[in-house]
Amino acid sequence: MVSISLDNPLVQSYIVYSAILALKLLFVAPLTALSRMRRNVFANPEDAALTRGKVKYDDPVIERVRRAHLNDLENIPAFWVLAALYVTTGPAVAWAQLLFRVYTAGRILHTIVYAVVPLPQPARVLAFGIPFAIKIYIGLQVVLHYITAV
Amino acid sequence: MVSISLDNPLVQSYIVYSAILALKLLFVAPLTALSRMRRNVFANPEDAALTRGKVKYDDPVIERVRRAHLNDLENIPAFWVLAALYVTTGPAVAWAQLLFRVYTAGRILHTIVYAVVPLPQPARVLAFGIPFAIKIYIGLQVVLHYITAV
Amino acid sequence: MVSISLDNPLVQSYIVYSAILALKLLFVAPLTALSRMRRNVFANPEDAALTRGKVKYDDPVIERVRRAHLNDLENIPAFWVLAALYVTTGPAVAWAQLLFRVYTAGRILHTIVYAVVPLPQPARVLAFGIPFAIKIYIGLQVVLHYITAV
Repeated sequence: MVSISLDNPLVQSYIVYSAILALKLLFVAPLTALSRMRRNVFANPEDAALTRGKVKYDDPVIERVRRAHLNDLENIPAFWVLAALYVTTGPAVAWAQLLFRVYTAGRILHTIVYAVVPLPQPARVLAFGIPFAIKIYIGLQVVLHYITAV
Repeated sequence: MVSISLDNPLVQSYIVYSAILALKLLFVAPLTALSRMRRNVFANPEDAALTRGKVKYDDPVIERVRRAHLNDLENIPAFWVLAALYVTTGPAVAWAQLLFRVYTAGRILHTIVYAVVPLPQPARVLAFGIPFAIKIYIGLQVVLHYITAV
Repeated sequence: MVSISLDNPLVQSYIVYSAILALKLLFVAPLTALSRMRRNVFANPEDAALTRGKVKYDDPVIERVRRAHLNDLENIPAFWVLAALYVTTGPAVAWAQLLFRVYTAGRILHTIVYAVVPLPQPARVLAFGIPFAIKIYIGLQVVLHYITAV
């Protein structure tokens, strides 16, 4: 049976990269708030009232940050669960750690090229696609490993 | 005490259905990209530039896929956590496996009737409602089992 | 090594507050449906057809509930994973339980002041900010504890 002890270096890698990804996801909330304050554009009338700002839903800078945020929600929670399940399949430690590292770096770059310093394509396609492919690979490994339990 | 060993068949069922749900959720991302390319409608100017497409936020086909995606985000992560916690309460294995199977089938059907082949109601109400009711039931079982820890 | 046995009172606290937060998150779905029916405004033509309602994407009451829902998605899944990882770092039980309790109360209040009984600021800023600060604190504790595994 696979050991999922906290002493297992892969378990520790999973924990630290999952926490870094969570902090990265959380970072987009103040980034949105900052964009709103800079442009004085808000989603709620009670927020706009504080600084005599406008209520607007189509500011291009703010909507870009919001799309980056939504893209995180579409991707990072799936990593949290798939990577945890993948650890239980007993993969080669160095290989799995490499996947976790590349995944985390990719998602951090995704936020940068999408919302912080918008870059022309294929910057965002790559920063989205490589972590996405890792997640599909990990997910298929989990399903194949436990396929008899369906 | 309840065994949450990886040898436990309910733990294995949880793992495989959670991974299938994650892959199903991830599948909606390329589905959105495909709809965007077919209709040549994008959310970002740098994407539209690649194929001389339009930037538009109200294309009915694409917005439908995006609503299906958001509905997944409102539902699937809550299943991942509630079902894992439910396994720790030691439910009857066959019963819990049945709930996991019906939940997974329901969410797959939800994507199909919402975004792939839009069907008239009550197709989507049922494909949403049955998994939703399972999640509420599982959540209440968890809260009742650990109520003394509040 | 830290015990993550189900007998551990902090593990039980984590489970019960995570389940309460999941049920709270799920509660926003019927709240949205109810607002749609009351105002007879829907996102899909097949839903509007049932009651001869309108398809509209800018109803202020419904959009407010949807923003509260999205805010939950941006916050609650990150708590589920960070709080679970935090438990593995072996924090003082009473302190961690206090954080979990305040977090849960804050997120329940957030939904109330955002979507049920909209209140002027700083009601929502506080109901968002205190749980947010707890999550950042917990996340940093996890990263610092496992930093050697990066």
